[in-house]
Amino acid sequence: MREILLKIDNNLRSSRHLLVTGANGFLGRHVARCIAQTGRKVIGIGHGSWPQHEWKSWGLSAWHQADITLQTLRRYAENPSTIFHCGGGGSVPFSITNPLADFERTVVTTAHVLEYVRLHVPSCGVIYPSSASVYGTVVSAHIREDCPTAPISQYGTHKLMAEEMVSSYARQFETSTSIVRFFSVYGSGLRKQLLWDASCKLTRNDITFMGTGDEVRDWLHVEDAAQLMLAADEHASVDCPIVNGGSGVGVAVRDVLKHLGHSLLGYEIIPRFSGVQRTGDPSRYVADIESSKAWGWRPKQNWRDGMTEYAAWWIRNSQ
Amino acid sequence: MREILLKIDNNLRSSRHLLVTGANGFLGRHVARCIAQTGRKVIGIGHGSWPQHEWKSWGLSAWHQADITLQTLRRYAENPSTIFHCGGGGSVPFSITNPLADFERTVVTTAHVLEYVRLHVPSCGVIYPSSASVYGTVVSAHIREDCPTAPISQYGTHKLMAEEMVSSYARQFETSTSIVRFFSVYGSGLRKQLLWDASCKLTRNDITFMGTGDEVRDWLHVEDAAQLMLAADEHASVDCPIVNGGSGVGVAVRDVLKHLGHSLLGYEIIPRFSGVQRTGDPSRYVADIESSKAWGWRPKQNWRDGMTEYAAWWIRNSQ
Repeated sequence: MREILLKIDNNLRSSRHLLVTGANGFLGRHVARCIAQTGRKVIGIGHGSWPQHEWKSWGLSAWHQADITLQTLRRYAENPSTIFHCGGGGSVPFSITNPLADFERTVVTTAHVLEYVRLHVPSCGVIYPSSASVYGTVVSAHIREDCPTAPISQYGTHKLMAEEMVSSYARQFETSTSIVRFFSVYGSGLRKQLLWDASCKLTRNDITFMGTGDEVRDWLHVEDAAQLMLAADEHASVDCPIVNGGSGVGVAVRDVLKHLGHSLLGYEIIPRFSGVQRTGDPSRYVADIESSKAWGWRPKQNWRDGMTEYAAWWIRNSQ
Repeated sequence: MREILLKIDNNLRSSRHLLVTGANGFLGRHVARCIAQTGRKVIGIGHGSWPQHEWKSWGLSAWHQADITLQTLRRYAENPSTIFHCGGGGSVPFSITNPLADFERTVVTTAHVLEYVRLHVPSCGVIYPSSASVYGTVVSAHIREDCPTAPISQYGTHKLMAEEMVSSYARQFETSTSIVRFFSVYGSGLRKQLLWDASCKLTRNDITFMGTGDEVRDWLHVEDAAQLMLAADEHASVDCPIVNGGSGVGVAVRDVLKHLGHSLLGYEIIPRFSGVQRTGDPSRYVADIESSKAWGWRPKQNWRDGMTEYAAWWIRNSQ
């Protein structure tokens, strides 16, 4: 009986809409827009007061301001074909000052999304944007997905716990799933993390930064990240594939700040560093992206152009 | 300031009582009794309507029937020196039919216990009884704690998630913790799992069982398990040591059933088996217990005596 229902459900799947949780967040907005650009209907649920003209401009057909729970999903999700679960904690510092709240945002919402699918829409896929923070401190030049996980922060621990729930539902209940472990996702609209903080500093002529400047990170433009989420939907299965979401290119923080400074100010700056490596801050964090490339996906935006665009957005929006 | 408070708190610690969550459960009751036998005060919190004369007979000074939340811990825990977090899901089949409820019982309660300690009693230790199910299918003769974790059931997944939270609080917030991964804990009073089910069958002359009979398990008497929890309290630290809780001795299910049958019925039985290995049921599951023995702990009860005692209890209590 379950098999027959699943089959009927699968046949209907392609005609159904998609749901983005946390659609008002940085990644969520871009995922929603990417889906809409393919001509499909997308609805959103999550936190944040959001005027209709704004969520419409991101391609959403509906926006429900609500906690992500079994109850609200029953009420608002309307049997989607896929849930992109972009809701969840989004800050390492917040996860350390508010670990229980971060746990509730990241892990508990994932438990509710998965249970909604198991109970009500078993054919629905669940695509989970995880984080490279699940790897912890790694020494390899390019981090592969089979690298052992050993998160350092609460944020990374909660992301790993959410991953484990997603893959356990795939194994036990045949939920179609996939996971993308994102590295440093950036782009216009991001009002936190290095680029935002540095832009604030640089434009008030403060060129002193924490760390050594030699920390190497893998920068992925948010539009490339959103496209990878759509590829993850196409490749979701009961095997719960996990791929890295990065550009595969490592760039030192020093070079990022020099380029950002020039884009913001119009002249060369020489950033200064405290020289003290921050605890738990790995010196190199670059993705091996062979698995995501095997899906046919490629990052399109190079980091210099992306950061020039970021600087232009910052100048327009920082006042 | 925090250091000074921690120091004062630590000095006061030895004079404080201990808290057992899930104290009305199988392991929880025995942990409470073990603590009381050392002359220390122990209080309990958790589910279950429990007459006063009964919880008193298990050594508890107080019993609070309540969900295990930050709020109820603030209300009832009274700044303990250690929390033995025995509350949580206790059944693999339940975790598969009710995964969200099992997640809430096991993972969410652990999040609340840890947060209570972080916010209100930073010197308090947290001792977590985990499960060998976190290992999944393992082929080694004796499973060591550094064996990779790969749980199969939701129960095992949730136990692993709880472990990860416990060790993340140790790392990030210096919570003093330790984890014991229990194998097949049994003893008088256990009204579920193989021994209970088999006793019900055998006494109605049903000698047909699932599986092959050659499955080897590691049986640990619940009193030995409770003593190991007390040893885990003595060895708790910010390194969050993890030890196996087993006897180190593997016994085939066939031999267990023959011995149990004889103890219950007074004559030899030859159990019959379906011959079909159950999915996800590993053929051998025996602990390497060098780590727990390094704490000075030893299992005292041998399996034959323990199961004879179980049979005697079953006869007295099954009507």
